[in-house]
Amino acid sequence: MNKNGILVVVSGFSGAGKGTLVRKLLEKYDNYSLSVSMTTRNKREGEEDGVSYFFVDHKKFEQTIIEDGLLEYASYCGNYYGTPKDYVKKQLAQGKDVILEIEVQGALQIKKKYPTTLLLFVTPPSGEELITRLRTRNTETEEDIMRRISRAAEEVDSISKYDYLVINDNIDECVDELHNIIASAHNAPIRQQDLIDRLKNELDILSKGE
Amino acid sequence: MNKNGILVVVSGFSGAGKGTLVRKLLEKYDNYSLSVSMTTRNKREGEEDGVSYFFVDHKKFEQTIIEDGLLEYASYCGNYYGTPKDYVKKQLAQGKDVILEIEVQGALQIKKKYPTTLLLFVTPPSGEELITRLRTRNTETEEDIMRRISRAAEEVDSISKYDYLVINDNIDECVDELHNIIASAHNAPIRQQDLIDRLKNELDILSKGE
Repeated sequence: MNKNGILVVVSGFSGAGKGTLVRKLLEKYDNYSLSVSMTTRNKREGEEDGVSYFFVDHKKFEQTIIEDGLLEYASYCGNYYGTPKDYVKKQLAQGKDVILEIEVQGALQIKKKYPTTLLLFVTPPSGEELITRLRTRNTETEEDIMRRISRAAEEVDSISKYDYLVINDNIDECVDELHNIIASAHNAPIRQQDLIDRLKNELDILSKGE
Repeated sequence: MNKNGILVVVSGFSGAGKGTLVRKLLEKYDNYSLSVSMTTRNKREGEEDGVSYFFVDHKKFEQTIIEDGLLEYASYCGNYYGTPKDYVKKQLAQGKDVILEIEVQGALQIKKKYPTTLLLFVTPPSGEELITRLRTRNTETEEDIMRRISRAAEEVDSISKYDYLVINDNIDECVDELHNIIASAHNAPIRQQDLIDRLKNELDILSKGE
């Protein structure tokens, strides 16, 4: 019997190291599959269709929205970005745990629609460490960094809606911690309804039939 | 900083192998402490006060009830059995995860009073396997066994109120699975309120102060 996979949403403050964590998780363990987003923006050099993104035109994207073919979607700077439902469903049916890196609002929307989704939130050990990491990577202006800190200060209020909060202090330890959490989550009753139904049925028969 | 432990309640069908699992968990890992019950029944040969039970008289037990000194208690065959709060609290404060083996009604009562309690339910892989185990241990009459099966058929409806459902098929694998689940449960936001409050405070200061 092939167990269904779990849809795992990873969110976290900008600068928490989500991207690296997800990449290492996929490298180290073979039960994961990364959700590939669909977008209408142009393909950049080095990007591959079906790997970086599924690249489609506006017509195809809007058709997919109408057909309810996306788990969630948003529009930025005139382009659409979304999560194709088909790809995720196929991977889940094959027993893969599908990782989806997405921000807080999208995560909560998915959880509402699909309550068995597992929501993980990643944070650095402290606010100081977060600002240090943002400054060290040297890719944003100080103004950008402060905007990200303000956003983090808002996002912190949504952490209690997540299933787990993980501190990314040591990257390798954190990868193993995420892996254990996802493995454990398979044991939540909400994801074991088939087993519970079967046990109920068997015990009913045994208690009446003998 | 010494992290507080978690109160872990282990329930399961009679014959699911809870006792062996809990014993092996305590043998293999050193972060656990077993909750010792208080009782008014007489000490039997080989039993030790403070290890098997805390043996007290009726007056002391009832005084403990009045002082709200028990997490839960029940009365069987004229004797009291209960879980002393002090012992559990002391162990939790020392960072130990305290294991409490208890039936469904008591478990749900404790969870209601202490929402950070972790509820684990243990089941054999099937109803057939449950009845086989009960017959193999050869300690109950067939009538007793059928009473236990009927009770299991009722208890199955409460599984969805537990945090995790674990199949005890291979005992050593199951012990490790329980250990991972308990380790993961430390990361639930409900058990990390101090961290969330600290992050909120730090991010608020950073986003306003600079």
